[in-house]
Amino acid sequence: MTHHHARVLTPEEYLFTEEPYYEPLGEEIAVFEAAYRNGLPVLLKGPTGCGKTRFMEHMAWRLQLPLITVSCHDDLTASDLVGRFLVRGGETIWVDGPLARAVRNGSICYLDEVVEARKDTTVVIHPLADDRRVLPMEKVGELLEAPPEFCLAMSYNPGYQSVLKDLKQSTRQRFVALEFDYPDAALEQKIVEKESGIDSQMARQLVKFARMTRNLKGQGLDEGASTRLLVHAAKLMVADVSPVIACRSAIAQALTDDSDMLSAVNELSASLF
Amino acid sequence: MTHHHARVLTPEEYLFTEEPYYEPLGEEIAVFEAAYRNGLPVLLKGPTGCGKTRFMEHMAWRLQLPLITVSCHDDLTASDLVGRFLVRGGETIWVDGPLARAVRNGSICYLDEVVEARKDTTVVIHPLADDRRVLPMEKVGELLEAPPEFCLAMSYNPGYQSVLKDLKQSTRQRFVALEFDYPDAALEQKIVEKESGIDSQMARQLVKFARMTRNLKGQGLDEGASTRLLVHAAKLMVADVSPVIACRSAIAQALTDDSDMLSAVNELSASLF
Amino acid sequence: MTHHHARVLTPEEYLFTEEPYYEPLGEEIAVFEAAYRNGLPVLLKGPTGCGKTRFMEHMAWRLQLPLITVSCHDDLTASDLVGRFLVRGGETIWVDGPLARAVRNGSICYLDEVVEARKDTTVVIHPLADDRRVLPMEKVGELLEAPPEFCLAMSYNPGYQSVLKDLKQSTRQRFVALEFDYPDAALEQKIVEKESGIDSQMARQLVKFARMTRNLKGQGLDEGASTRLLVHAAKLMVADVSPVIACRSAIAQALTDDSDMLSAVNELSASLF
Amino acid sequence: MTHHHARVLTPEEYLFTEEPYYEPLGEEIAVFEAAYRNGLPVLLKGPTGCGKTRFMEHMAWRLQLPLITVSCHDDLTASDLVGRFLVRGGETIWVDGPLARAVRNGSICYLDEVVEARKDTTVVIHPLADDRRVLPMEKVGELLEAPPEFCLAMSYNPGYQSVLKDLKQSTRQRFVALEFDYPDAALEQKIVEKESGIDSQMARQLVKFARMTRNLKGQGLDEGASTRLLVHAAKLMVADVSPVIACRSAIAQALTDDSDMLSAVNELSASLF
Amino acid sequence: MTHHHARVLTPEEYLFTEEPYYEPLGEEIAVFEAAYRNGLPVLLKGPTGCGKTRFMEHMAWRLQLPLITVSCHDDLTASDLVGRFLVRGGETIWVDGPLARAVRNGSICYLDEVVEARKDTTVVIHPLADDRRVLPMEKVGELLEAPPEFCLAMSYNPGYQSVLKDLKQSTRQRFVALEFDYPDAALEQKIVEKESGIDSQMARQLVKFARMTRNLKGQGLDEGASTRLLVHAAKLMVADVSPVIACRSAIAQALTDDSDMLSAVNELSASLF
Amino acid sequence: MTHHHARVLTPEEYLFTEEPYYEPLGEEIAVFEAAYRNGLPVLLKGPTGCGKTRFMEHMAWRLQLPLITVSCHDDLTASDLVGRFLVRGGETIWVDGPLARAVRNGSICYLDEVVEARKDTTVVIHPLADDRRVLPMEKVGELLEAPPEFCLAMSYNPGYQSVLKDLKQSTRQRFVALEFDYPDAALEQKIVEKESGIDSQMARQLVKFARMTRNLKGQGLDEGASTRLLVHAAKLMVADVSPVIACRSAIAQALTDDSDMLSAVNELSASLF
Repeated sequence: MTHHHARVLTPEEYLFTEEPYYEPLGEEIAVFEAAYRNGLPVLLKGPTGCGKTRFMEHMAWRLQLPLITVSCHDDLTASDLVGRFLVRGGETIWVDGPLARAVRNGSICYLDEVVEARKDTTVVIHPLADDRRVLPMEKVGELLEAPPEFCLAMSYNPGYQSVLKDLKQSTRQRFVALEFDYPDAALEQKIVEKESGIDSQMARQLVKFARMTRNLKGQGLDEGASTRLLVHAAKLMVADVSPVIACRSAIAQALTDDSDMLSAVNELSASLF
Repeated sequence: MTHHHARVLTPEEYLFTEEPYYEPLGEEIAVFEAAYRNGLPVLLKGPTGCGKTRFMEHMAWRLQLPLITVSCHDDLTASDLVGRFLVRGGETIWVDGPLARAVRNGSICYLDEVVEARKDTTVVIHPLADDRRVLPMEKVGELLEAPPEFCLAMSYNPGYQSVLKDLKQSTRQRFVALEFDYPDAALEQKIVEKESGIDSQMARQLVKFARMTRNLKGQGLDEGASTRLLVHAAKLMVADVSPVIACRSAIAQALTDDSDMLSAVNELSASLF
Repeated sequence: MTHHHARVLTPEEYLFTEEPYYEPLGEEIAVFEAAYRNGLPVLLKGPTGCGKTRFMEHMAWRLQLPLITVSCHDDLTASDLVGRFLVRGGETIWVDGPLARAVRNGSICYLDEVVEARKDTTVVIHPLADDRRVLPMEKVGELLEAPPEFCLAMSYNPGYQSVLKDLKQSTRQRFVALEFDYPDAALEQKIVEKESGIDSQMARQLVKFARMTRNLKGQGLDEGASTRLLVHAAKLMVADVSPVIACRSAIAQALTDDSDMLSAVNELSASLF
Repeated sequence: MTHHHARVLTPEEYLFTEEPYYEPLGEEIAVFEAAYRNGLPVLLKGPTGCGKTRFMEHMAWRLQLPLITVSCHDDLTASDLVGRFLVRGGETIWVDGPLARAVRNGSICYLDEVVEARKDTTVVIHPLADDRRVLPMEKVGELLEAPPEFCLAMSYNPGYQSVLKDLKQSTRQRFVALEFDYPDAALEQKIVEKESGIDSQMARQLVKFARMTRNLKGQGLDEGASTRLLVHAAKLMVADVSPVIACRSAIAQALTDDSDMLSAVNELSASLF
Repeated sequence: MTHHHARVLTPEEYLFTEEPYYEPLGEEIAVFEAAYRNGLPVLLKGPTGCGKTRFMEHMAWRLQLPLITVSCHDDLTASDLVGRFLVRGGETIWVDGPLARAVRNGSICYLDEVVEARKDTTVVIHPLADDRRVLPMEKVGELLEAPPEFCLAMSYNPGYQSVLKDLKQSTRQRFVALEFDYPDAALEQKIVEKESGIDSQMARQLVKFARMTRNLKGQGLDEGASTRLLVHAAKLMVADVSPVIACRSAIAQALTDDSDMLSAVNELSASLF
Repeated sequence: MTHHHARVLTPEEYLFTEEPYYEPLGEEIAVFEAAYRNGLPVLLKGPTGCGKTRFMEHMAWRLQLPLITVSCHDDLTASDLVGRFLVRGGETIWVDGPLARAVRNGSICYLDEVVEARKDTTVVIHPLADDRRVLPMEKVGELLEAPPEFCLAMSYNPGYQSVLKDLKQSTRQRFVALEFDYPDAALEQKIVEKESGIDSQMARQLVKFARMTRNLKGQGLDEGASTRLLVHAAKLMVADVSPVIACRSAIAQALTDDSDMLSAVNELSASLF
């Protein structure tokens, strides 16, 4: 067997040539397109694993634009987004950060879990997110005026909001906001089948199981099983792992470390499989 | 369709050749001009999205001066404002920050959301903000004496003041301060129509809706819908999104994540559209 | 006697040519392989010294892949994982961090005690840990698309979880999770004999002793004696240290500094040896 | 109209050729001169806008010494004061900070709002502020022995002292301290007239107004209106802004954001103008 | 009299050619050697000044290995231990930190007061402290496999442990641990005589005095007088300082600043000398 | 009048050719010399302004050694003491910090207010402060063995000790400690006369005044007036400032900002002058 090496891409090459599979939950595609045509930035809200990233991939394919994703975190600085000077081969050159790169080339810039970012990260997007649509790059003494193609999107999970990690009103009130949630049972079953190749009977049981765990949210679980976890379990089953072990590894142990909750969740799965 | 790229501008090229649309709320234009003629710096106070930035654009056009805006944040350092040495092509050169650039060329420097900045940022402007009007640049061992054209302005939202994020009296007492608020109903309707192209009937309903949300401030909402949000909703409607969905995406979801407040706000919009 | 110097290896040379000794506790090998074949990342949970690292070495041998381990800590940055530019001999060159190196060459990257890492470390793996399997390297303006061989694994001890040091749901729900614990008595005795060369009678007593200390967990001890500590004590005994001194140095003093607990644990060992 | 650019000065060129207008409050000029002749450093205490900076300008003119002012803040490091190595054109050169520059050339170094500075800033002045009068510059491996002309002065506002921001006794007990306060009514009126060109009737009313606000200190206001604010209001009036609007913008809004206090202060001004 | 200059040594030259004076307290030498022969790292526990450092010097002499000591502290980073790139004469070269140096050359690396170190320091030793015995050096993209001669040891004072400064179980459970304490009276007297040259009568009194102060531990004193302090006092006496003054300066004032405790301790010494 | 410039000295040139005036309080000179002859480091304790620095200058003169003083603070790093690599003229050279410089050349290194330093600063001196007398310089991969001339001394004010800012026992128990306090009345009067040239009557009154303020310590004052403050006041009087104004500026205002305490202290002085 040949040992493969990673494929190296520029961000602009991260284009979707095939339609990413996405099942719409409501009018989110139409609202996103209307916002995009009016140059308004978009904010996606919803729990982990419910399809926000896939939706962005789908929109990138519809608009035929490169998708530049930035996973936000505590230590993400404005320079990480805008760019910095680097010394290479004796010459100092400016290297655009992902945000500047997206503005310059008219791509989509998607800031994933934006509430995790430091405050300077959210403030640096203010002039881009209102009708100025400019990115000041103080270090090079220039302003970038975004072309109409540029699209700014960001996401977060409102379930984790705290006083410390909250979007300021002056940031929120620049965005058109779309709410995401888990799909209804029939749709979720269809997604699990499509993504894992499992049969419809098992997919139906997995969805039933997920909905039981979601009822435990706030009663010992921080979050119920996401659609993504169902796909994981289904893939393990297709690879000949028994349903009980698959549910334990892909779902129960992924959800919690609490031994009482683990027993409860494992009993739920035992009653179904 | 051609794919566009960003236009690259120097800060001095950020001049307004056409009058930015602005509806005065009171005597703010006269007071700003009197302060400017006397070399006094100006402080704009008011909630997000009520027109402070647009007012600055309008004044920049009236005074025919470039407008250099700095979005302030927790990690903005004095060096970010004043400048730093950078190595380029083997040579070390000094690059003015936006504040030094504005002082040197006699432009407007507008520090947006200044209370977010670190303390050193607000202190570095002290000698510029009193009758000395000088900017010490310790790293180059020089002082810049501001020309009469130079104008220092800054803004913040007093509704968010906390003990930690407060302007010191020694900073405040250097500025002439102007208070901004949402325009009255007739004026706000006019602005929404002008900015979005929506008909007057719908604009009137949107303003009514906004004023209802502003009454919820402090009763579950941190802030009511700003004029900017009304313009967003109106633009979505003009792009054929239904009023209820437009209000939900552009206003309700932008204002809050709380499910009870979302229901309340959505009911308000349902009663109007 | 010749004085030896360290052998210097590249990470890719850290391959296991001989099977690392590992006794399976359940179906962990099958689940790991099913996850690996489906490109799903794996999370190992369990107390210190129970065999998680040895399991990874064993899996690396089974899959014939280099094992690149990163011991996580408070100050581990995303750059430590992804890489940085270094100036060498007048030239600036990019040096892959251990994570990028593993992605690029299709190796196993094992993040040990991942909850100790800063949040940016866990976020940087998000796009690698879902079906995108890409590593954005903003500093070089490139994306690495992981080859099928690449395997992401991480571990932590759920017994130490606190509010501050917890995996976010958005991280957890990307992994298939395996729970580890101390082996049962017969198996543990077999491991101690095999690793230290001690006789079975002494090994049986050591296992008995360990199980007594594990009953004290939460009653003065943070943790009971791990299998590793038993191996240490056994090795000291084989090197002619008396059992009581060996248990005191290798087990009791390694477990706690509390003088009451030390007396209690030493009495336990005195009753056995 | 010609557009002017900033005048660029070295710190040594910041000399006062004309006497800066200053009205003495007591024996502060004599005490400052006696301290200066004995090589003792001076500490100015008092509220913002009462004339401390102007006093220093006046003393610089009397002593015919350049005045080097450093506005202190949280992030001011010892290196900012003493100096650092910078690479310029392939050569590394030492650049004196403002304190070293003042010591080397025998100027006045005035540390404004010194309690804001980090602790290393206040400690670095200790050997300069006692009878050693030396500045150790560890980075260049040298000591500077201050010439008799060198004068060290610093200021702060004792009204803002907190446990965290307090001068250590070992710092305080190196300085001769002068207390400043607002001038009495007649003197303050004279100053307002002189600085703004307003008539004496209006100046008298402004002073009356200021004294009313000072009575509100601690009862809703952090600080009353400083002499500087009166000059601001007077300048706006001279520029044809109505007295009520001038007092609101230059004084009330500059003092507070609290709506009740704003009403109270605006009523006071309405009763006077 | 000639003025001497410091002797400059490489760490490998820090070898003990003469036996460092050490009086064993129990079987610590045998246990250390058994651990060393089995490649197990060693942890020394005990109060300050009781002989841990001297024991390490003695073992270094017995094993004829260079002793590389690192005094740990809050700001000790993993790079401080492992090494860093430095630019010298236009070339960038890698400089091993003390830990990498000890691994590479097969020396003893002794981390003194290891609980003071930052967490990354303790984690970086994990792969060295279990049966892998490797040091990953991410910055050079290499692993060092320790030769059999390499010995890892560390120490701390369990009396100072706090929740914040505690060894993690995953660190502790990698080490063989040895407990140290003050020697018994006869042995301590012998040590004091040997180290200072004082007569046995005075040495006996000093030991009596030390034991009195040790009884005050936890009753006003953080720690009693260590053997080292007795040697200090004895040396001052040999240099003609009176016993009372010697005990006050070398012992009482070194132990505490509390005036009541100082009186109590000084009275104890007055009763003996 | 000629304008003077600073004299530039190397630390080794900071030698005392004339005897610095010092009045002994007890046997501190003998104990210091005995400690020095035995290679033991010395710790000076006492309030600010009581003569600790002068004592060190006096001892430096007696031992005819250069005195290298480091004023410690929160941000003083180990590198600040030990040294760092600097790039100069294309070459990277090592520059000794003040501690390494003192060790290398056999000078006195005096760490003033050592409890203010970061923990790494105090730990870096441990191997220098016990019988090893070595300074490890990890960055150059060398150890400096101190010559017999090298002398380590440090000071702090025990009155300010807090839990956070305290010398660790492992640091304290390496030093011979000397306690300093204000001199008795006759001696203090003599010092004031000698230092300022004031007549004995006034000096006696000043000492009386100082002792009154020292009784207020802990009753509103953090610290009473130090001998240094008396010298300041006396110098102002000699320069024709009236006694009441001199005491207010040099003593009362230097001690406190509290208006009640200021009145109390000023009344005390009014009763005496």
